[in-house]
This record gives sequence, structure tokens and C-alpha cells, in this order.
Amino acid sequence: MLSPLSSLLVDDAVARALKEDLGDAGDITTQATIPADTIIKAVVAARKSGVIAGTELGRTTLRMTGPTTKTLIKSNDGTRVSPGDIILEIEGPARDILSAERVALNFMGHLSGIATATAALVDAVQGTRAKIVCTRKTTPGLRALEKHAVRAGGGQNHRFGLYDAVMIKDNHIAASGGISKALERARQMVGHTVKIEIEIDHVDQLEDALSGGADIVLLDNMSTNDLAHAVKLNNGRAVLEASGNVTIETVRDIAVTGVDIISSGWITHSAPTLDLGMDFA
Amino acid sequence: MLSPLSSLLVDDAVARALKEDLGDAGDITTQATIPADTIIKAVVAARKSGVIAGTELGRTTLRMTGPTTKTLIKSNDGTRVSPGDIILEIEGPARDILSAERVALNFMGHLSGIATATAALVDAVQGTRAKIVCTRKTTPGLRALEKHAVRAGGGQNHRFGLYDAVMIKDNHIAASGGISKALERARQMVGHTVKIEIEIDHVDQLEDALSGGADIVLLDNMSTNDLAHAVKLNNGRAVLEASGNVTIETVRDIAVTGVDIISSGWITHSAPTLDLGMDFA
Amino acid sequence: MLSPLSSLLVDDAVARALKEDLGDAGDITTQATIPADTIIKAVVAARKSGVIAGTELGRTTLRMTGPTTKTLIKSNDGTRVSPGDIILEIEGPARDILSAERVALNFMGHLSGIATATAALVDAVQGTRAKIVCTRKTTPGLRALEKHAVRAGGGQNHRFGLYDAVMIKDNHIAASGGISKALERARQMVGHTVKIEIEIDHVDQLEDALSGGADIVLLDNMSTNDLAHAVKLNNGRAVLEASGNVTIETVRDIAVTGVDIISSGWITHSAPTLDLGMDFA
Amino acid sequence: MLSPLSSLLVDDAVARALKEDLGDAGDITTQATIPADTIIKAVVAARKSGVIAGTELGRTTLRMTGPTTKTLIKSNDGTRVSPGDIILEIEGPARDILSAERVALNFMGHLSGIATATAALVDAVQGTRAKIVCTRKTTPGLRALEKHAVRAGGGQNHRFGLYDAVMIKDNHIAASGGISKALERARQMVGHTVKIEIEIDHVDQLEDALSGGADIVLLDNMSTNDLAHAVKLNNGRAVLEASGNVTIETVRDIAVTGVDIISSGWITHSAPTLDLGMDFA
Amino acid sequence: MLSPLSSLLVDDAVARALKEDLGDAGDITTQATIPADTIIKAVVAARKSGVIAGTELGRTTLRMTGPTTKTLIKSNDGTRVSPGDIILEIEGPARDILSAERVALNFMGHLSGIATATAALVDAVQGTRAKIVCTRKTTPGLRALEKHAVRAGGGQNHRFGLYDAVMIKDNHIAASGGISKALERARQMVGHTVKIEIEIDHVDQLEDALSGGADIVLLDNMSTNDLAHAVKLNNGRAVLEASGNVTIETVRDIAVTGVDIISSGWITHSAPTLDLGMDFA
Amino acid sequence: MLSPLSSLLVDDAVARALKEDLGDAGDITTQATIPADTIIKAVVAARKSGVIAGTELGRTTLRMTGPTTKTLIKSNDGTRVSPGDIILEIEGPARDILSAERVALNFMGHLSGIATATAALVDAVQGTRAKIVCTRKTTPGLRALEKHAVRAGGGQNHRFGLYDAVMIKDNHIAASGGISKALERARQMVGHTVKIEIEIDHVDQLEDALSGGADIVLLDNMSTNDLAHAVKLNNGRAVLEASGNVTIETVRDIAVTGVDIISSGWITHSAPTLDLGMDFA
Repeated sequence: MLSPLSSLLVDDAVARALKEDLGDAGDITTQATIPADTIIKAVVAARKSGVIAGTELGRTTLRMTGPTTKTLIKSNDGTRVSPGDIILEIEGPARDILSAERVALNFMGHLSGIATATAALVDAVQGTRAKIVCTRKTTPGLRALEKHAVRAGGGQNHRFGLYDAVMIKDNHIAASGGISKALERARQMVGHTVKIEIEIDHVDQLEDALSGGADIVLLDNMSTNDLAHAVKLNNGRAVLEASGNVTIETVRDIAVTGVDIISSGWITHSAPTLDLGMDFA
Repeated sequence: MLSPLSSLLVDDAVARALKEDLGDAGDITTQATIPADTIIKAVVAARKSGVIAGTELGRTTLRMTGPTTKTLIKSNDGTRVSPGDIILEIEGPARDILSAERVALNFMGHLSGIATATAALVDAVQGTRAKIVCTRKTTPGLRALEKHAVRAGGGQNHRFGLYDAVMIKDNHIAASGGISKALERARQMVGHTVKIEIEIDHVDQLEDALSGGADIVLLDNMSTNDLAHAVKLNNGRAVLEASGNVTIETVRDIAVTGVDIISSGWITHSAPTLDLGMDFA
Repeated sequence: MLSPLSSLLVDDAVARALKEDLGDAGDITTQATIPADTIIKAVVAARKSGVIAGTELGRTTLRMTGPTTKTLIKSNDGTRVSPGDIILEIEGPARDILSAERVALNFMGHLSGIATATAALVDAVQGTRAKIVCTRKTTPGLRALEKHAVRAGGGQNHRFGLYDAVMIKDNHIAASGGISKALERARQMVGHTVKIEIEIDHVDQLEDALSGGADIVLLDNMSTNDLAHAVKLNNGRAVLEASGNVTIETVRDIAVTGVDIISSGWITHSAPTLDLGMDFA
Repeated sequence: MLSPLSSLLVDDAVARALKEDLGDAGDITTQATIPADTIIKAVVAARKSGVIAGTELGRTTLRMTGPTTKTLIKSNDGTRVSPGDIILEIEGPARDILSAERVALNFMGHLSGIATATAALVDAVQGTRAKIVCTRKTTPGLRALEKHAVRAGGGQNHRFGLYDAVMIKDNHIAASGGISKALERARQMVGHTVKIEIEIDHVDQLEDALSGGADIVLLDNMSTNDLAHAVKLNNGRAVLEASGNVTIETVRDIAVTGVDIISSGWITHSAPTLDLGMDFA
Repeated sequence: MLSPLSSLLVDDAVARALKEDLGDAGDITTQATIPADTIIKAVVAARKSGVIAGTELGRTTLRMTGPTTKTLIKSNDGTRVSPGDIILEIEGPARDILSAERVALNFMGHLSGIATATAALVDAVQGTRAKIVCTRKTTPGLRALEKHAVRAGGGQNHRFGLYDAVMIKDNHIAASGGISKALERARQMVGHTVKIEIEIDHVDQLEDALSGGADIVLLDNMSTNDLAHAVKLNNGRAVLEASGNVTIETVRDIAVTGVDIISSGWITHSAPTLDLGMDFA
Repeated sequence: MLSPLSSLLVDDAVARALKEDLGDAGDITTQATIPADTIIKAVVAARKSGVIAGTELGRTTLRMTGPTTKTLIKSNDGTRVSPGDIILEIEGPARDILSAERVALNFMGHLSGIATATAALVDAVQGTRAKIVCTRKTTPGLRALEKHAVRAGGGQNHRFGLYDAVMIKDNHIAASGGISKALERARQMVGHTVKIEIEIDHVDQLEDALSGGADIVLLDNMSTNDLAHAVKLNNGRAVLEASGNVTIETVRDIAVTGVDIISSGWITHSAPTLDLGMDFA
């Protein structure tokens, strides 16, 4: 079951977005043309097929512009929807709902787009042992929300930042004087609750990584032959993660090599929005 | 010439992104494996062709993690680049540069993606009178940066929020009792420095919009025949803006109808990132 | 009808003001001398005649110091009051109400002072076509609230900041090489939703401004003869705004020249507070 | 000598004001019309006579929009100026200076207005023992700056908020069961570093206030006869503060009664701005 | 009776602490293992004897992670508890309560530790005139909360910061040219609501301090003989405060010298936490 | 080598602490008594023996109150000092240094106290395989700084919050239906970069924890006999952590059982401050 976002994160994100859209003068169109006492019903509905994420942000947006507005989530985060499916049912003052419309749709469209892209990769690897995970290639300031959208799409999260896992790349290896030394330094410096991952480009680096005690080995931009070879050599010792050139076309071939994890930057940095709209009764 | 972003905006955005990536523990990998006194040179280079935006965010990211790091912008915002072209030249402590790498690339890749998408549409309408503009369909919290990226791509900006121009849509018209009444209310309520735009779905609504004094008329989802008809009827009275179903395939046909403005949500909400990377000397 | 302020703006302004007044130690007098369970009734009443603005800030102040306090607005923003008229009726814990008293009165007195000053100018031009508008000469950090108070007083708002309209002044003209060039540059750079205003000192600059496509022409510090002359020359082409030496004594003479807009810095930067007080039952 | 404001306070206030004025789009006029490399000289000069306050806020505003701008303070806070006197000398990029102009003038005009009003009262009581102090009737969010302006005008500060001194008013007295009880409660509850002031309306309450150990007695709205009587009865025991109906006409009569302190809300809540302008070389 | 903390302070402190503990990913353990619909009862109970402070912070923590959680305070701030005594009774969703547990306990344990340490000193001086007060030696960012805990323990507060009372130490005396000059400068510069304290090291400085008009004299690190001598010389003129080498062993000897105030840094900077735990029904 | 704290964290913490101490009125004593042009030299020196942490916070405090002050760190974080040893050498305006003194000392004393307490435990287990780590029992809002102080004292960090490692306790086990099920749920829900720790009270639970795939097993409040037994059974499979009743007297006995990790709340929640002082030349 999908874990909810902390309400502290949601409230901060929505308040910032609303201030951005309302500015100092507010929704001058709605104030000028809509009477204060007009009550309406509306829905947020899907225009295209996809997977929903961000409903709590939509609901919070509607609450922040209108404390009396009632919003019912009809399709929870993680739900697959088809065109016309209802995501939110809304009833409240027309002014408050119209002033919230764009921000609510921007959040939900952006995050549902990420969930949808993730689900496409997840579907493609069905039946293999591979899990799809995101990277740190996220939109600045929105990482927690985007990581949540990846989970809504059936993916899992890689580390959230530079702080919660070690990831040793070529520069770190070079500066340390080799794979073994880099791993040794990391093990000495970081706490016992932190996993250590190391990135290698060639299968012949794998044994050093394993003997150095890496928890996870990132196999970067390797051919499927090399990936399969690495899986065999590893023999279950470390978690193996494949990255590089992961697309909807290539992902299954990568998965059938037997790697545990496939990481994709595309699902967060380049997923198109999912087309959602607000319809008024 | 492209206007720079306010440094207050840039500093706030970068500080937020760095706190997100560094968390409380910081870059534990780099701290463990890179000596404090290692100085390196690096470049940010293009991996794909496109238009650059966000260099100031990249430079600020590098400054915030390393006050002694020197960063030289080699390709200003708005520059068209090919694979291998250098965007930034960097020299400073390896720790500081590596800790900034991902955040700097996330900003520049995201904004350059938007600039590149915008430029594709701008190129397509070359020789027509049409200008490409963005909408309010932006990533929550990043609108000012994304509007800047659109300008870097040769586009122009629509209103920045609900606060700086009136945009009367069907709900506003219905609540006001018609196009004329909605325009009249808006003219009475808003200040003399605010332009009034109204959205219509059918050409036969145009005369009401014009006689009501609309500064701009949004022609929503009309056929190119209808657009051309509207241009003729308008005869230069209001600014005409076309929106709906704007893609790289359709945009030139829309432009040759003679509309003044073509607005696209896609360039901000669905532009894929531009692939940039950091290379070390 | 007067548009309400965004609750996000109101909450931020009130929280900042309460933190300023309460500091770390809080209302030490009230805590020492008033029992926690004393419930009182109170009113905010006018001591002088004027126009009310800022009631929502008063109500929010009372809510933030006492979630159980009930506050009823008896004179909405925009209401003209005489000495003794009731603005707010309040009932709740004495401690909470006394701790809120000064902040609530400071907000309401300051904003009602601006509304009252505005209304005096508005009254003076009754029957002419001129509208009274405020400027950017506002108290730093309180502009949105003060712009609202101007609307409560029957005035309208000029641009809210440097961002939502172009205003070309003598320095911009000089740097651009003349009125025509400045207007041309502005039209090329800013989006189609932004109005362009230009300031002129002499009537003989008017034709350049009009032919350059200015939406609004600011006639700065001109005699009423010159203003009338400009109105005639303009013949309805651009919006004409008069500024400079606008006082309660001069404003009607300026208005009868036929200008559309009269802008006053005095109503925001120098309006005396409206004397309001809290009375306890 | 006048104490400077903390740079943390100044930086926060200026950043907030600049964000308010620049919004997301920035100074679109200047960006469109002024070349990036134009360097200019300018001065801030007085248009009317008065006392200066807020120069540090002006200087910080210019620094925040233009790190390369040089600003020299020619008239420090507390200086009396005549029309034409120079307050600041400025040299830097025209864009940066023009974008800062209004915010800098708003701060300096507002605070100099308060300093000027204060100085008028201070001048009027010259030769008496009375000191002019401000109250908590300040503009919400700007209290520290306005208290500084009062000091610049030769006045002194009353308490900064509800937290730094006890002020017992009629409601507190009533709830406590009399002057003696209220003072006793206050002495028991507050720390030994906190002074206790009590407000009385009639001279015959003075003895209770003094015997109860009040450090300061506020004589509210008393006739000058009563004030003189109170001074005599007090005989130097407590500090006596007069308040109510303090104007430039009445203040000297109040002062010659021999009271120690005269407090005025008018100098902060209703002082007109001091007219300052920026002139370009 | 103990004054409550401002809810603005409490909300800010708790939100900051929860963000620190939850980070971007939230309570991943609880989300993984506890069903969303599990409702539990729990109590916060004392494991050791002491004095309670910070219950409002505990309650607010539980409210912020779970708006439906009900929390009943069974032992108000200032209550003396024995092992097993109940402080809070809690009922709500297991997820919300478990996610709040550590932050709530951290606040309450830390502040109760300070209250307990304070109470130990207060008990030790029972029957003397001396009051126990804290200093500015507090944990950065938590001063208001810690000052509250001192009051909960039966102590009183010294000044809250550099801003609310004058404290003249040896450097200030040296820079001013002596005790008399320093006191004179202070009296001239600060407002009439501010008390002036001066620190002396030797009894023979006392007369200068008193004749200079000090409200409070801090007797720093003096022997009990010297303190008693100072009390005699002072003869009730100023408040006398003893500081330096104040421990549970020495405090009564200091108190019986007759000083009014004994200040201790230890009660805020070095008090061990009070051991509290959460027990589940 | 000790990793530095992020300057973003340090700057935020110091600015908050300075605002807390300076308030709106600032350091009124220093402003009144110290001439603006007095330059002094000072040192921060140890009064007691211990281990230093927080020098960067001290230096930043001095920089924020005085941009011209020069501060040289003589004893880096992690240095063992004896009474009289110099930590910081300082030269700059007397006003700026005196205004910073208390905040700088509060930070450095608090963090050095934690480092000193940590080092005492680290020293006590010298020669064993056990590492000393801290817990989440930290002062709210200061966790990152306190975790750094633990590292300065030679300890290591446990997880930073609820977000960066799984820690399954008795409530989680009960809600999941046993150790195996709880571990299985956690493995399914959390990403591959996250370690899973489980707490057990009895040695006979160890096999379930190990077979369930726990990375770390917390042995809570076990006798040293049981700890030794667990080490033997574990035979190097999982990391074993001992907690509960860890004091300077017991810690070595715990360590010699062969556990990998010993966690202590005392080093963060109850460490007394290290006595440091500022001396003036």
C-alpha cells in the first residue's frame, strides 16, 4: 500500500504554489466576474489514460483557497484511469474553486505524468525480478513529491539525496586510489545504518566491488551480455542495479538479464504531464 | 536581449534545492572519499543539441557549495548548442564541485529542455507574424524560472499568474450573463494598467468580444479555417491568440492564419530535459 | 463589490505582526493580571469619521491569539463610519483579546486611514470621469494590504510593482534615444498581456507617445491648461493619467480637465491613521 | 550617538520589500529599455526640510539589486536636512539603480517622516525635562525600523512590545481587583529585570500606584493642572509619563508640568513621509 | 500560575522538529509495518521523578502528525511527578502516534529536565528571600521554551536577550572609563522602561554602582562573606543578584546571605533530560 | 577526518540564534557604552578539559555580527583541549564581538559538551570492536549539529531521522504479526538503498531476525551474558547493536561482549556543556 506524503510537505508545497499564482492582487478575473455566493460542483477528470498521483496536493489546494469547499478523492494515488474517469469530486464557492483550478491541475498533472511513465516501465518488466527505481534527476524543490509519484506508479525509490546512502562514482574512485580503497574509506566514515553503492563500467571491476563489501553495485551503461555476465558472477552477493540507456524499448531486455534494480532518470526529468481537466456541472 | 532573473529569486531557488539534496548529513560519499584539498577543473557540456537556459542557476549552485569555486559561463542563456559544446567552465575544490553537480545539472537540464522545446516552435513559425508564448501550466514553484527559459528559447510570456491580467473563460462568462457583461464587469473592477483577455470557442462570439473592449481574444481549439476567418473579421482591432492542439506538426499551419500569438502548455509542462553532463579534466 | 484579500497574505501579515508584538516572552502584563478563565465582550469602534479597511486582518489577529474567540464584522471594508459606529463585535477569553488588541487596531487604523484619504479624493472628483489610483509609494512589505485599502476607499490600483506593467520614465527615454525608440523596445520585449505607459512632461511629447503605441500616457506635473490641452489632442486614443501636486484642494480642478486617471502617492505614504479603539462591555 | 540597526533586520526587511516590488517578472521596463552596461551616477536628495532616518535601508536596497553599485551615505541618520541636501551618493549600473529607486525611497521617506515628526516634538519641549517617546502604535511588521527612526529624531523608545515591560491598564486593574493587587501580581510574576508601569486616569489613583511599587506611572489624558499636581505629589518617586492629546500645539504645555516622559502615537502612526527624490547626473 | 507559551512559538518549534525527524521520505518503518486504520491508546509517563514542562509541545506534536489524535494533558507544566505518573493520555491512529513519539518525548524530556534542575535549586533556597533565575546560557534557538521550563520549575527569568535589559560588564565599564560613566551613558541611551544592571567583582565597587543609579547589581563570583557584606551596604537600594559557582551544594549558603536573586547557567545549559517514555495500552 | 557541516545549515542556525538574542532592539548595552571605532583582540579559551566541536558556528556568529571581524580557528573540531587552550583568535570591532559572544559560546559549549561526552565513551571502549553511536534523542531543531558533535568526539551516527533507515520496534512487530512478517513488509516497501534494523529484547528472537534478513539487530537492555551469547549466535551475519543502560561505568563491559555498535542517548540529551569563555586582550 502506498504511503502518504507528510502533511507538512504538502502544505508547504501548496502554499508556495498558490502564492506564486495569486501574487499580491489575487485572482482578479474571478473576483470581477463571479458573485461571492455562487456555489458550484466540479470534477477533476482524466483526458488521457494513465496512473494518478498527487490527489492530496489537489485536495489541499482546494482547501487552502476555500476552507468550505468539499473535495472527495475518487481515484486514489496509484489508480489507473481512462479518459473520462473522475479523480476528484468538488463542491464549494465558485470563486474559491476557480482560483485553485490551475494549481491543483498543475500538481496532479505533473505527478500523474511521472506515475504514468513509471508504470509503463514497471509493466514492461512484469514477470522479471527487476524493480524500477528513480534517481536524483528530479525537478529542483519537488523531489519528495516526485519520489512519491514514482511509488504511485509502482516503482521504488533510490536514495533521496546525497545524505542517505553512499554512491561511489568514478571521481570518488580515482581520488581514493581505486575501488578497494574507496570502499574502505566509505565504510570507515559512514554510520552502520548507511548502505554503500559503487558504480562500475566494466564487468572486470565487479570482483573488487564485491570483495570491498559494496552493498549495491551500479552497472553503468553495460550491454545486456555484460549485465547477464555480472549477474552470474555476483551470484546473489550484492544487489545489482542497471542504469543507462533505459527506455520503454530496452527495459525488458535489461530486466531479463536478472539484475535486481533498473534506475531511470527519464521517469522524473522528462515524463510528459498527464492530461487532466476540471469540468463544471 | 534576454533579461536576467532577479538574484533574489535565483538564490532562494538554489538554496532550497541544495537543502533538498544535501539534507542534514550532507554529501557523505564525497566527504568520505575525496580529500579536502583536491582542486579540479570541470566543464558542463551538452550531450544533445538544444538551447541553453539556467546558467545563472548553475553558477549560483556552484558558488553556494563552494565560495572559492570559479565558474565561467561559456554559453549564455539563449545560445544554441551542439553535442560537446561547453556551457560552464569550473575550477575549484573537488568536494564542492561534486556536491553541486546534480543540482546544477537538474536546473540547467530542466530549463534548457524548456528553452529547446520553445525554440522548436519558434523556428517552425519563422516568417509569420505569430509569437510563441507559454501559459500558466508550469511546474509548481518554478514558474518564474520556466518563464525565463521560454524567453531564452525565443518565446514570450503570457501572464505570470492570476494577478497580472484578466482572462475571462466560459465559467466567468456564464456567471456574468454573457460576454458583454463579463467584459463590462472586468473593466469596472480592474485597474487601468491591466489588460483584459477573453476566451471564445466560436468565431461568432468574436464581435461581442471586440465591441466589449477586449484587448486580447483567445481563440480556443478552432480550426485553421476559423482562425483565418477570425483574423479577417478582427481586422487588427484586438490581439488574437490561438491555443489548443499546438504541436510541432500543427504550429506553422496555425501561424499562417495570421494570428498574433500562439500559446502552448506543452513547452513548460512536458518538455523533456536537455541532456547535459559534467566532465572532469 | 470589493474583492477580498487572499487568506495566505492575511495570515502571513498577521503572524508576522503578532510575533513582533509578543516576542519570546509574550504578553507578560495580561498573563500576570488576568485570570485564564475570564470571558469578556468587546467592540472595536470608530472614534472619528472615515472609511473602514482591514477588518479581515483584525478578525485574523483575534483568531490567532484565541482560537475560541468569536469575532463578528459589523462594518465591512468600504463602509463609511461615524464616531461610535461599531466595526467588530468580539467575545472570548480576556487574555486572548487583550493580547490581540494593539495589533488588530494597528492594522485596521492604518488601512482605514488609507481608505479614508482615498475616499476624500474620490468624493472630490465625483461627477467627473477621473478615477483616483494609488502608486508604488507604499509602506515596504504592506503593499498588497494598502492597495486593498485604496479599493476600499473607492479608488483603483495602479500597477502593483515593477513586474506587471511597463512605465517608461525620463531615464528610460534618455537611455533608449527618445520616446519612439523606448516604446518600440518595450513592445518588442514584453508579453502581449502587458500594458505600456509612458511619462511625459510637456504636451508636445504627446504625439510621439501616441504614435509609438503607448496604452497609457502619464502627464507629470502639468498645469490644468496643459492637461486640458492634452485631453483634446489625445481624443480618446490612450488612457491619460495625471500626477503631481495632487491634493484635496487641487484634485477637482485636475479632474475637470477630462483626464481618465489621477494618481496620488499621498493616500498611501502619508495618510494619517483612522482613530479606532477597543471598548469593553 | 545613534545605535545602528542589526544587519539581520535590515537585510530581511529589504529583501521582503524588493521581492514585493520585483515580483516574478522583475523590472520589465528597465530590462527592456536600458542597456546592461550603462553606468550612471545618482544622488538621493531632500525635497523638503526634515530629519533623515533609514539610510542603511537605502544602501542595502542598492546593494541587493546591484552588488557592484557603490553607495556613500552623505547624511547619516539623525541629520537635519534642507531641500537640495544630498543623502546618498550612488554610482553603478543604471539597471540596478533604477530597479532599486522606489524601494529605497519608500524606506527612507517613511522613516525620515517619522524622524522629522519626532524632532518637531523634541524641539518643542527643548529646555524642559521631558523626553519624547513613541508607543506600540506602529506599522505592523516595521516596528524595529520605526523605533529606530524615533531615536534618529531625538526621541526615545517606549517598550518594544508586550514582552519587555509590564503596562497595567484599566482592564488589568479591574480584573485584578484594584491597583494594589494588580501591581502585586505583576511583581510576583515577572522577572527582576522588568519594569512595571501602570496607567491611571485620575490624580487620586497616584498614591496607590506609588505605594504599590510602580516604576513608571502613565498619566492618561489628564489636564495640565492635574499633571502638575501629579508631579508634585510624586516628588521624584516614580517616572511620570504623560499621554493623550499630544500634538505639536499642546506638547510644550504638557512638558512644562514637569513630567519625565511624553508619549505620542502620532509620530509613528500618522507622520507624513519626508519628500526625498533620486536625481541622476 | 504559570503563563502559557504563545501558540505561534509552539507551532513553529514543533513544525521545525517534525520536518527534521521526518525528512522527505517520512516514517518509513511505520508506513511499512502499521496498517493505516489501526487505532491505539498510549500514555506518556514518567520513568524518574521530576517536574514537568513542555506538555503543550508534546500535544502539538501529536496534533501535527495526526489531526484526529486526541491528547489529554494529565500533568500540567509545573507538576511534580514520580515514576509511573501519567503526563499525557493519547488516542488515535497508531501511525500518527508512532511518528510523533520521539519528537514529543525529546521536547518534553528536555524541558522537564530543565524544570527539574530549576526546582532542585528552588527547593534548596526555600525560606530565604532568594529567587532562582536563569541566564542567556541557553540552547541556541530554544530560549523561549527553556525560559518557560525554568518558570515551570519555580524559577524566574532573567532578561530574554541583549535587547530587554542593560547588563554592564567589565568590558563595557573599561570602554566607558569607569562604573559611573558607564551607568550614565546607559541611562542616557536607553528608554525609561529598561532596567540597568551592572556586574561588579568586588564589594568596594558597590557604592559606585548604587550612586550611579543601577537598578540591579550583579555580584559575580564573590564569597558568601562578601555577599553578606554587600547586602548590608546595599540596605535595600538596588536588587542584588549573585552569580558564579552556583551548585546544589552551594546555593543555600549563597541564599542565606540575603541576596535577592541567584542566577544559574547550569539549569539551562547542563540539565540532564528527565526520563519519560511512551507506553502503549 | 571529520566532515564539515554544510554552510547552509550553519548559516541558518546562527541567524536564528542571533535573532533570538538580539531581538528588535539589539545589544543595547554595548551600543550605549562601547564606541563604534574600538577595535579589540579576544580569544575563546577552554576553562575545562574536553573535546571541541562547533568552531564553524562560532566563527559564523562572529562574521554575522561583524563582517570585518577576523576569526582564526586554533583548535579544530575534534581537538582535545585542556584548561587555557585557545579555540578561536578574534580581532575586530568591540561592539560586534561583544554582541556575538554569548551566542558563539552557547553553540560551542553545547556541541563541545556532546563531543566530550562522546569521547569519554569512545575512550572507554578502546581496543574493542565496538563503535559508539548517538540516537534520535537530540535537542529538537539541532540534530544535524549534534550528530556532527558526536563525530567530533570520535563517535559515529545512527540514522538521522525516521526517513533514512528502517527501525522496527515492538509496536511494529506486534502490528505486523511477528518478526518475520514485519521484516518481510519492510523489505517490500522500502527502497534497495535502505538498511533494515530490528529491535529485540530476548536472545531467542535473534534467529527470526537473522533469517528474516535484518541488516542490523538492536539488542535492547540485555545483560552482558545475553549480549555475548547473541554475538556468538550471530556469528557475523548481521550488525549487532547494544542499547540501554549505557553509562561510562557499564560501556566497556558491554563492548567486550563483542557487539559492533553501542548506542547512547545520554551523549546528546544529557551531556553537560563544556565550559568555554571569551577573554579579552
